[in-house]
Amino acid sequence: MVEKAKKHQLSLRPHLKTAQSLAIAEWFRAEGVNKITVSSLQMAEYFADGGWKDITVAFPINIHEIERINRLIKKTEQLQLLADEGTAIEKLSRALNGSINIYLKIDCGTARTGFDPEDKSGISDMLHKVKKSSNLNLMGFLTHAGHSYRCRSAAEILEVHAATKKLMLDLKEDFASDFPNLNISLGDTPTCSLSDEWSGVYEIRPGNFTFYDLMQHNIGSCTLNEIAVTMLCPIVSKHQKRNELVIYGAAVHFSKDSIQLNGVQNFGLVRKYKDKNLPQSANFVKALSQEHGIISCSDAFFKSVEVGDFIEVFPVHSCLTANAMRGYYDKEGKFYDHFGSMNLH
Amino acid sequence: MVEKAKKHQLSLRPHLKTAQSLAIAEWFRAEGVNKITVSSLQMAEYFADGGWKDITVAFPINIHEIERINRLIKKTEQLQLLADEGTAIEKLSRALNGSINIYLKIDCGTARTGFDPEDKSGISDMLHKVKKSSNLNLMGFLTHAGHSYRCRSAAEILEVHAATKKLMLDLKEDFASDFPNLNISLGDTPTCSLSDEWSGVYEIRPGNFTFYDLMQHNIGSCTLNEIAVTMLCPIVSKHQKRNELVIYGAAVHFSKDSIQLNGVQNFGLVRKYKDKNLPQSANFVKALSQEHGIISCSDAFFKSVEVGDFIEVFPVHSCLTANAMRGYYDKEGKFYDHFGSMNLH
Repeated sequence: MVEKAKKHQLSLRPHLKTAQSLAIAEWFRAEGVNKITVSSLQMAEYFADGGWKDITVAFPINIHEIERINRLIKKTEQLQLLADEGTAIEKLSRALNGSINIYLKIDCGTARTGFDPEDKSGISDMLHKVKKSSNLNLMGFLTHAGHSYRCRSAAEILEVHAATKKLMLDLKEDFASDFPNLNISLGDTPTCSLSDEWSGVYEIRPGNFTFYDLMQHNIGSCTLNEIAVTMLCPIVSKHQKRNELVIYGAAVHFSKDSIQLNGVQNFGLVRKYKDKNLPQSANFVKALSQEHGIISCSDAFFKSVEVGDFIEVFPVHSCLTANAMRGYYDKEGKFYDHFGSMNLH
Repeated sequence: MVEKAKKHQLSLRPHLKTAQSLAIAEWFRAEGVNKITVSSLQMAEYFADGGWKDITVAFPINIHEIERINRLIKKTEQLQLLADEGTAIEKLSRALNGSINIYLKIDCGTARTGFDPEDKSGISDMLHKVKKSSNLNLMGFLTHAGHSYRCRSAAEILEVHAATKKLMLDLKEDFASDFPNLNISLGDTPTCSLSDEWSGVYEIRPGNFTFYDLMQHNIGSCTLNEIAVTMLCPIVSKHQKRNELVIYGAAVHFSKDSIQLNGVQNFGLVRKYKDKNLPQSANFVKALSQEHGIISCSDAFFKSVEVGDFIEVFPVHSCLTANAMRGYYDKEGKFYDHFGSMNLH
């Protein structure tokens, strides 16, 4: 992703909600990355305390968290927050104890947050309000093409990207006379992984590519051997009659995202620990309760493992699994905790 | 549940994987409960350290955790563990530094863990192995009718209960000549909530009834106003065109269980904070991403709330939501952390 950003002269601001880890953030820093995206103000504080000075919080401003915003202003050099259609921007401006940067969040089709791009008067109104506030710096338009996750092929992802990019550039053009310096910030992992069309875009904010996962593989944005995180789980029970294994590893560890693979609900592919081969589709997590995971597997796989053996699970959604586990072991067995291991209360 | 247990002379051993809380466990103790069920050895240690002396770990023995089992023997007076079809019981017996109690886990139809009840020779073999081990006390048969969660009415739940009870009593009868003192332990929330047929059963282990949730309501085991935990979430964005609200509250807070309600996927019902009325089915969480929850709501509900207001979400699966949140506020605003707030590494 660093190479892609360089090639297209894009600012890379990786989303650290996936890894949530200061140690992994240092791998980005070693590649010259000095700005990040996070998904909450709490997470922003964690990274600010870890030495990150340029942070975008990709979540609508929550006025209840004004104290935390003010703390963050002191801890950072550049803090970007998102204004949405309902954001009380003048109230925010009055409550701030310093300056922040504002992106307008645009809904490019995900239907989650952001201005409807057709709502020109709402957007214009917010642009002027931000410009008028002496402690708010207007940055531009930011969007997240989250609907790329509903794609089922690389071609569909590229279509979403082309439409998103056009929509954002048109919007920039619409307001160029009054606001000539608006930046465009895009950034979901599927489009950032696959597209080479970035003219007019200022920055990208992909996150999931840090690890990738089966969902990304399923929609075509990565290969299986690009998946960089697995769960090690012990087999606690074997059931010959149904070729099923039970592992200690389930909803509280993986969360509960699933994909449909070969017409069957799938919560993760599995292989034996230290197996160098990629996991086979016959061997997968078919169900999760709170602490039990049920593995459906081939006859050969069943025979090759014993109760007490470890298996590796390739997660469906690495962000949620990483969040639930609160840390990582590297290949040498060293442990790194992450934001999720902090006491949040 | 305490009254039901007394009425039917059942031992009540509530499953604390739902609440995971020492404070809530004390509410049980105040009702005369002095034994509990948990879902992991780590959770058992948390409660043992909090003064609970009689604990059943309702999860197949994991031989990798022998050190933890040995620590628990010292911390408890009665420790019950589950033997499954693949449990290396002789190896376990040799590795123990004290005595424990063993239940044979029986699969009554959930197809998760436990002996196939038809596998008489496997069951007989395990019974004899346990009896022969001087540090293992044979307790009886334990099952979890988890397939009651697939029911869609009280009548179906009662059918599952009748079949489970018959299967377990028949099994006890099959081995009564060699093993006259086998106990029967049952216990999922749906059957424990609805059934009044408990003759021959020694103990029950329901957990979810501590809070109940929309899934339990949906299958008929509780009423809406018996749901005893909700999530308070701020509204961070309003979208007039689609009558949708965005809340700060999503997959990392709720996990991702959903139910089908009126033919639509539903991640929780919502009402305004401090509203005394029960939530209406028109107002619900329709989608969850990592940190954003999308609320679909009626026109009237949409108009009645502002960005910054709090809403209460009735969770689909209270166990997973409670686990993700790691603690509770009571109605007076006092905070109680739980097992999930511990550093598990």
